[in-house]
Order: sequence, then C-alpha cells, then structure tokens
Amino acid sequence: MKSPVEELEAKGKAAKAASRRLAYLSAEVKNKALHNISDDLLAKKGEILAANQIDYLEGEASGMSAAMLDRLMLSESRLGAIAQDVLAVAALPDPVGDIFDMRTLPNGLQVGKKLVPLGVIGAIYESRPNVTIGIAALCLKSGNAVILRGGKEAIHSNSALAKLVQEAVIGAGVPDGAVQFIDNTDRALVDRLLEMNDIINLVIPRGGAGLIRFVSERATMPVVSGGIGVCHTYIDQSADVAKAVAIAFNAKVQRPTVCNALDSLLIHADIAERYLPLVAAEWAKAGVEMHCDKRALAILKSQPSLKLVPATDEDWGKEFLSLVAAVKVVASLDEALEHIERYGSGHSEAIITEEYQAVMRFLNEVDAACVYANASTRFTDGGQFGLGDEVGISTQKLHARGPLGVKELTTYKWIIFGSGQVRP
Amino acid sequence: MKSPVEELEAKGKAAKAASRRLAYLSAEVKNKALHNISDDLLAKKGEILAANQIDYLEGEASGMSAAMLDRLMLSESRLGAIAQDVLAVAALPDPVGDIFDMRTLPNGLQVGKKLVPLGVIGAIYESRPNVTIGIAALCLKSGNAVILRGGKEAIHSNSALAKLVQEAVIGAGVPDGAVQFIDNTDRALVDRLLEMNDIINLVIPRGGAGLIRFVSERATMPVVSGGIGVCHTYIDQSADVAKAVAIAFNAKVQRPTVCNALDSLLIHADIAERYLPLVAAEWAKAGVEMHCDKRALAILKSQPSLKLVPATDEDWGKEFLSLVAAVKVVASLDEALEHIERYGSGHSEAIITEEYQAVMRFLNEVDAACVYANASTRFTDGGQFGLGDEVGISTQKLHARGPLGVKELTTYKWIIFGSGQVRP
Repeated sequence: MKSPVEELEAKGKAAKAASRRLAYLSAEVKNKALHNISDDLLAKKGEILAANQIDYLEGEASGMSAAMLDRLMLSESRLGAIAQDVLAVAALPDPVGDIFDMRTLPNGLQVGKKLVPLGVIGAIYESRPNVTIGIAALCLKSGNAVILRGGKEAIHSNSALAKLVQEAVIGAGVPDGAVQFIDNTDRALVDRLLEMNDIINLVIPRGGAGLIRFVSERATMPVVSGGIGVCHTYIDQSADVAKAVAIAFNAKVQRPTVCNALDSLLIHADIAERYLPLVAAEWAKAGVEMHCDKRALAILKSQPSLKLVPATDEDWGKEFLSLVAAVKVVASLDEALEHIERYGSGHSEAIITEEYQAVMRFLNEVDAACVYANASTRFTDGGQFGLGDEVGISTQKLHARGPLGVKELTTYKWIIFGSGQVRP
Repeated sequence: MKSPVEELEAKGKAAKAASRRLAYLSAEVKNKALHNISDDLLAKKGEILAANQIDYLEGEASGMSAAMLDRLMLSESRLGAIAQDVLAVAALPDPVGDIFDMRTLPNGLQVGKKLVPLGVIGAIYESRPNVTIGIAALCLKSGNAVILRGGKEAIHSNSALAKLVQEAVIGAGVPDGAVQFIDNTDRALVDRLLEMNDIINLVIPRGGAGLIRFVSERATMPVVSGGIGVCHTYIDQSADVAKAVAIAFNAKVQRPTVCNALDSLLIHADIAERYLPLVAAEWAKAGVEMHCDKRALAILKSQPSLKLVPATDEDWGKEFLSLVAAVKVVASLDEALEHIERYGSGHSEAIITEEYQAVMRFLNEVDAACVYANASTRFTDGGQFGLGDEVGISTQKLHARGPLGVKELTTYKWIIFGSGQVRP
C-alpha cells in the first residue's frame, strides 16, 4: 500500500503527465468540460449539500464562529451561483495558443511567441469550498493541471466537489489526472507539496496572512501571492469633498474584511478641516474606529459619537481587515507620496483630487499593483476589471501584478519557423 | 567608519531612492546618458585599458588559462565594440510608460496597464568586464537602478568601467545612485546582497552553472536564471539531409561553449543510416567527439577517424559546453518528444523535417523557451531575435522566457482614471 506521501507524489506525476496533453487541448473541449461541471453542480446538489452538512455540523460542534460557519456553508442558491461563475469562465476568451509578436527576420527566420499554459498549478486554500470549483475552472480554462489542497474544515465539501469536477471533465475529453485533490489533511503533505518543484510550476496560496507567509517561505517553486493590502486613499487639497467622502466611505465600509479595503486615510492639511468632520460622521454611522494622528485628532475631538483613538506608529502600514482606519493629515502631495512609499504594500492606492497635475504625479510616482484617481480601491478585483474570475491578487512585480485571471496563468514560448538557417 | 556590509546597505538604499525617479525619467535623458557612456568609453580608453592591464597581469601571474585571459582582456577595438553596443541599446525603443489594454468599463472607470521598471536589479557576474557596461546600459534603458557585482578576477577593470558609467550618466541628468558597484570582492557581501529583498526586485546571475546555482539557492528575491541549456536537435525521417547536416554542424561547432549549442542529436531510425555517416564526417573535421547509443555506434563503427564513445546514462541530459555530442537513434517522433520531455532543460530544441505535421506537433508539444523547426538552436539570443542586447536567457516559465532584453526588465501597474466611482 502507498504511504500518503507516495500517493501525493503519484498525484503529482499524474498531473504533470496530464498537463502535457492539456497544453494543446482545444477551447471547445475545455469549455465543454466547464459546462459539464456547471451542469453537475446542479444535478448532484444533493450529494454536495450532504457532504457540506457534515463539515458544517463538525464546525458548529468545534465552536467555529458564525462568520466562519457562514463562509463554510453551501446552499442550493450558493451552488447555483457557483455554477453560474463556471459558465462565466467558459464564456471568457481562451488565450492559450495565441501567437503574437511574430515577424520575419532578415535571414528569413519567422520568430514569434505563443501563449502556453504554465503546466501544473498548486493551490493551497482555506475555508470557502467554492474555491475548489473556482480555481479548478480557471486552471482548466488556461490549460493547466491543478493540485488542490483545501482546508481541513471543508474536507468533506471539497472532496465531493473535487470528485464532481474530476468526473465532469473526463466526460468532456480532458485527460485523466488534470484535476488532483489531496484528500488527506495532514500538514506534512503540504510540506512535501511545496518541495515538488520538478512537478509544480506555480503555487497559489489563498487565505489569511499566516497561510500566505507559510507558503511563501517554504515553497521551492514560484509563488504568486498577494492578499496583503495596506491601501491608502489620499485626499488632495483640491478634492471634490462629496466624492471624497463617498469614496472613503465605500473603500472602508463596503467590505472591510478584504485586502482592497481602505486602511489609511491621508488628508492634505488645507482641506482637512472641511473634509474630516464629514467623512468621520459618515464612518461613525457604520461604526468605524479612527486611529488619528495629532492634527486629525485636534480637528475631530469636539465631534460627539466618534470612535477616536490616538494613532501609534504601528497603525501606519497596518492592514486592519475590520472597521478601523488610520488617519493622518499631511502637508503636501509629496508627503503623501513618501508616506505611501514607506508604508504601502504595493496593492491599491488612490488619490482624490480635481487637479490634473496631482493625478498625473500620483499615477506616475506611486509604485503599486493598482493606482487610482478618484475611485474606490475596492475595484481591485478580476471580475471588476473584466478578467472574469481571479485566482488571487498579486502584489509582486514579476510575471503579473494585480488581479490574476486566466491569462495570468499562462506563459509563452518562442516558436521559430526556419528553412535551414544556421548562425553565421 | 562604515563596515563593508554597511557600505553595501547604503548603496542599496541609494539605488532604491534613485529608482523612484528613474522610473519616470524621459527616454531622452536615458538615451543621452547612454551616449555619454559610449563617448566616454572612447575618451577614457587609456584609464580603462590601464586598469584592465592590472587584472590581466594578475591573471597571468596566477596561472589563468589562455581562454580565461582572452575573456578578461580589453583592447581598443573591444572597447570600440562595447561603445557601439551601448549606442545600439540607446537606439532601441523605450518600452517604459507604454500604456496598453486601456478600456472604459460600463461604470465609466478607465482601466489599463502601464509598463514600468522593476525597480532595482542586482547583477552578479563573472569574468568578462564588458558585462559591467552591457547590464548597466540595459538597466538604464529600462529605467531600473542596478547594483553590479563582478568577479574578483576583473575587479580593476570593472571598477574603472563602473566609475565611468556613474560619471557619464549623472552628466545626462540621471539621478545619483542609479548605478552602484560593489568594489569589495568579499564573498560575504554577496550573501548579504541576496538577503536584501526589501531593496532588490530581481537578481540576475550571469556566469557558470556554479554561480547560477549558488544565487538561485541563496536569493530571497526573484532570480531570473537560465544559462543551463541541454539542447536537442531531432532529425526526423523526412528531413532534408543536406539541411540537417548543416544545422547540426552549426549547432554543435559554431560556438560549442555556450548554452544554446547542441548537446544531444536524436535521429529517426529510418534516416539514421543515410544521415549519421554524413554528419559524423563533418563533425570529425571539427574534432567533435560522439557519445553514441548502440544503434548509432553500429552505423558509425566502420567509419575511420571518428571519435566514438559508447554513451552512458549520464550523457542524456548533459550540457557538454565543448565539442562533444550525445547521439541517439529513436524509433519515432513520439520517442524523440518523450526523450526531450525527460532530458531537456527547457532552453532550445529543434526538429529538422520536411513534414508539415511533424513540425506542428513538435512546436506544439515541446515545452521549452525556444522551439525551432529547421534552424540551428544557436539563434537563441536577444540580438538574433531583434531584442537588442540581452541580460541573459531565462529557462523559467514565469515572467519572461528565453532571451531577456529591455522589455523583460519591466513590469506593469494598473492605472485607473475614475470620476467618483464606488463599488456597489
């Protein structure tokens, strides 16, 4: 009998073997497979919900928080939404095989680049079982084999969903082995997975900061990680105050637990007395706690019903993931740029201003995956940017930056058509 | 007084500070700086050649091989060629600032991508002093700051060249600190450099396999490495024999010490008896030693004056970097594809055939940076592909594959022009 590590290695080899054929599978076959997944999510909802119920009851029994239980729970309507998302991935254009930059050199060689899948993607994720379907669908669409490793808390749901995917795609003509699922939740298998750089071309961790750090430190293959977003919104002296209030409110409050939510609000001194009381009053309605520097505190302290806390050094550069914002009054655009340079995590940064030169400087000078003028940082998202679903948001500079969609799971190879050329 | 490590850290900080301004420096200023470098290489040739003479004499005294001494040596004509190469980089289009994929979303947000430099590049290289100029020029053109660390054997030449570059670029308006040179050859500084992932965005090792392995294993930031090329040329049954002989001869003999030279020759069994004696006779004139499998040996053994050695398992997948080739007769295109899949290093692979379907299968199925039909693998080179000079050849899949030119030293950021949009 195979040991769990040997089983994992066999899954890796099977994924690699499948990836060779997956690489040039037609869009037709891949889309058929996605439609099969979507259909089966509805047809087999009984099995999936029953498996999910086991996870839910175990979570409840182990004292999981209501928020966590909510993330874990599947329902008929949630399955319907997941099935719809798979159809949306099927409807995306297939980038694989695109040939570009093709040209004829003076010696007659025809040289160009062809978009190809990366090969085998490893996905390590937590909690929401829909990630099993979402990542499998994006990998399939982009012609990659995938090895899925979900969290212990959703093992029954994930196992059932992975089995569904495996059966659905083989029916469409996808090579056996293209979708692998690790059904053993032993942490040692993750350690081994992260060593398999002869098999896995890219690892994507999706979850909390702890998971991302663990994977980044241990992985011996490239990791595209992000997830950590320390996002600033800078209110310039010439901002339209109404827009600036609405944007800061949206960026902080609309979904405070995610990486593209506002963490620090910077305000030009010349507009701070007009602007701060208004945004503070709006934020207060939503229960936002403000960690203010001295100048912001001086402006706001007489205002009743605000949750004000004097800011400490640790508030700058902190990702709050909750209804807390750091607030700082700055003397100039330059000071704002320097603050962002120092404390930003390279995720999403915004300026709110009506002054043209301030926009152009901010967009030029801020070094982040997504740089906004006059909009909420909450738009940093593959779906919002029109990429379809995303496997994550990269704050790295190499390969791909910002939301990672189907195309970001590909690479290229040079193809050269010759007629006997040799190098002189 | 600062310790060498503190000095290195100060150089890193200076490079990072410079990179912020370099990122949006105009092409005009950068090209002016490159012209200054080119001019100074001619104007200051006396100083440079004097410094090079010290390295040369030290190398000679320490028993350096003639080949190594030749790589180390500069001359007036070599300086002239280097100066010309710098002008060629200046003449390349500047990709930085290119805006692409820009579109207006239904909510009115204008979203697109803008090409920006990576930031700070670390370059660790050996022997040839021209690399100091070559990498500095490509980094400058692409708006990156650079920290150069050349080999001990060329320290005087590299110091003089780095000083020349630093002076030349400041005269053009490039920010101070953009080009850093580590003038201390203590290995401990390389260790520290490879830890500076808060400063350095990408490290490029350029040299032998030992250097590349060392840097890849130690670096805490992304490394683009390649250099190791186990290159196959497969002679299909329908190959044009004359072309196939000329291509294999060129790929093995024209410059055997480089990564894109032929290592293994695979021949379809149906053409082996016609083809092998011809290529062997040509190779013999150049002194090529052939490590043959049994079938190849049987065909060639009666031929006089060949250097034949029975192949061992270690010959497959070996980068020879010399006038040695592994030779194997295969039963089919499939066997060739499987052999390349197993033993290739993902660098450059070629098929020689007149059959259309064989070309299409080979280009589709071989997973390598550069896949050729009917041409010599020796063309894998930034200059040959029209990228201008190259900083190296990547055999990785992420970010960039194959020759790395100016554009491959950039990344992009998303830029978003809004008018008050918030996420619903």
